[in-house]
Amino acid sequence: MHGPSDFLMAVRKAEPLVQNITNYVAMNVMANVLLSAGASPAMVHARDEGAEFARIADALTINIGTLDQEWLECMALAAASAKEHGTPWVLDPVAVGATELRQKAGERLLGIGPTVIRGNASEILALAGRLAGGHGVDATDAVSDAEAAARDLASRSGAVVAVSGAEDFVTDGKQAKRITNGDPIMARVTALGCSLTGIIGAFLPTGSAFDATVAGMTYFAVAGEAAAQRSKGPGRFQVCLLDALSAISGETLDTMACVTRV
Amino acid sequence: MHGPSDFLMAVRKAEPLVQNITNYVAMNVMANVLLSAGASPAMVHARDEGAEFARIADALTINIGTLDQEWLECMALAAASAKEHGTPWVLDPVAVGATELRQKAGERLLGIGPTVIRGNASEILALAGRLAGGHGVDATDAVSDAEAAARDLASRSGAVVAVSGAEDFVTDGKQAKRITNGDPIMARVTALGCSLTGIIGAFLPTGSAFDATVAGMTYFAVAGEAAAQRSKGPGRFQVCLLDALSAISGETLDTMACVTRV
Amino acid sequence: MHGPSDFLMAVRKAEPLVQNITNYVAMNVMANVLLSAGASPAMVHARDEGAEFARIADALTINIGTLDQEWLECMALAAASAKEHGTPWVLDPVAVGATELRQKAGERLLGIGPTVIRGNASEILALAGRLAGGHGVDATDAVSDAEAAARDLASRSGAVVAVSGAEDFVTDGKQAKRITNGDPIMARVTALGCSLTGIIGAFLPTGSAFDATVAGMTYFAVAGEAAAQRSKGPGRFQVCLLDALSAISGETLDTMACVTRV
Repeated sequence: MHGPSDFLMAVRKAEPLVQNITNYVAMNVMANVLLSAGASPAMVHARDEGAEFARIADALTINIGTLDQEWLECMALAAASAKEHGTPWVLDPVAVGATELRQKAGERLLGIGPTVIRGNASEILALAGRLAGGHGVDATDAVSDAEAAARDLASRSGAVVAVSGAEDFVTDGKQAKRITNGDPIMARVTALGCSLTGIIGAFLPTGSAFDATVAGMTYFAVAGEAAAQRSKGPGRFQVCLLDALSAISGETLDTMACVTRV
Repeated sequence: MHGPSDFLMAVRKAEPLVQNITNYVAMNVMANVLLSAGASPAMVHARDEGAEFARIADALTINIGTLDQEWLECMALAAASAKEHGTPWVLDPVAVGATELRQKAGERLLGIGPTVIRGNASEILALAGRLAGGHGVDATDAVSDAEAAARDLASRSGAVVAVSGAEDFVTDGKQAKRITNGDPIMARVTALGCSLTGIIGAFLPTGSAFDATVAGMTYFAVAGEAAAQRSKGPGRFQVCLLDALSAISGETLDTMACVTRV
Repeated sequence: MHGPSDFLMAVRKAEPLVQNITNYVAMNVMANVLLSAGASPAMVHARDEGAEFARIADALTINIGTLDQEWLECMALAAASAKEHGTPWVLDPVAVGATELRQKAGERLLGIGPTVIRGNASEILALAGRLAGGHGVDATDAVSDAEAAARDLASRSGAVVAVSGAEDFVTDGKQAKRITNGDPIMARVTALGCSLTGIIGAFLPTGSAFDATVAGMTYFAVAGEAAAQRSKGPGRFQVCLLDALSAISGETLDTMACVTRV
């Protein structure tokens, strides 16, 4: 595997079954993003089947965006099942610092050993225990402010930590990469961060956790950049994003990719 | 009633109230598909009102896509209420073979006597009891492989059985029809099968269950085919599909329809 | 503050955090509508955090579209918390007359003192206690038929009452205004009324409840009108609506606005 296109081609060929326990806002968009990438999404979150399904899935993603106690129990059971059966899983700690419920949920799920943690800068800072406040689901901190926290969180947890924002930063505690693709309009459309978590899930079965995460984030950011070039407003952008995810060639992806080791 | 357009005109005139107990992924798309067809959708699934609402609705659809025990109870109550009050209802057994919860839910709802069962080939095979495995929500079997199972399921249950896929197959156990409209891109957008279930619900009050189901499926497949001609990617396709459902004339529908008795 | 553009500029500058307890159908669209308007939406409805979050939010909206008993408890707790902490909140009594659960929920929430009540004519009539029947979620009464009920409901409750439809009507019981912008296609896309409730929430922190509600409704109707001029079908209209909400200038808004005192 050399460029992000190698990972994308592997996803399109394998059509991995990605189980997602995600929030109500993101479900539809995330499913379409995964379909556009060539994966097979399944939104399975019921307590009676979440853990059972995690055995047959190729990857699992857990997003605490619209959390309640019942869902949290299923998340914990599914994550433990994934861990037991060797299914890679991604934690998306939405607005983890905003309320006590979220903080506790984030810590509990972190304890089950996610393969990857994907959040915005504010979320990674909160999960790493360095946050002052928290303002809803949108990031109020810059990615660069969260890099030390991300390295620290990765070292302590053993997970790859991915911080998304104007620039993306990925680290496993030892190595780190920065991705400078993307477009500011991506912050003006809901559920794209959540969808990116799904993309990382789809890429995980194709290689090492660090390399697959970098490749998935690059693919998503490049598709966003390409879509933004063809659209001005947030409505048209959403349409173009799905089309770009579906249509982008491996050659274009590798050519547009701006990834640097840091 | 001669062509599918007669049924479509009846829907547009009557604006039937269609109650849908469906999954979180599909709710928004399904509501927009029903509005574009001229129907009046209502997403009513609470245990305290689901059965009450089924009395005033013109049709009911039940989809087990994002199931849990609480929802299943409401589905069963609403289906029984529909049965009691003569409201036609459609069962959409999403991923019925994938987990024990789904298999049991499918069998329980089947026992309440749906007017129509709509699924992909894998789901119809699973519900008919002939399935080996099951891989998430996407079909892994061809429609042609499910025709015998569909006839058998229709004969045993008294329901019209509709298998959707690259080609659609509809049977009531005695007669059967095949619809060859549509486009492969429809499998790359989430919740379109769920939305088709809503369309069948909207068409049911306009005629016999078999004829109305064939007409509804033809209308949806033709609109999909027309939309695909105007769009390459899955994002743009979704936009064009709603526009096609809304704009298509009866004449175009009848001209494009490819329906054969088998 | 003179024209609706003054309120819009204030929203875009302040990026208010709007907490929404809304239905599953609307969540994604409503979040995107709020982002396009420049606000920061948060869909927070869990019983364990809804009231806590209402303390830090700039506004709260509550929509009973997909209601159940558990959600109703959170709505009541969040509304009471908003009331206690001076957070303005909007009640959206979807299909309030359709079932007993909804009627009771509407009355209970009304008793907690919403800042604004936003509904279609049928819903306002039902909440004011003058309704005969009720047919799902779509209005079967004209806005003009609900004006007296709206004035009465405003006087009795102390809330601003906003009736949306072919024309919009806003009253606080003493004064009233009518907005004649908009387009009929808005009734053929789901969740736009719910999204308008979010817009009102975003505008509330920028001025008096009556003036902010009129400004928010005008902004949404003008954007809808502008979007309809660029699109024929309901699919394309949704795309254009988000783009129009995002792109519209204050000057265009004030020029297109058709608001009259009645």
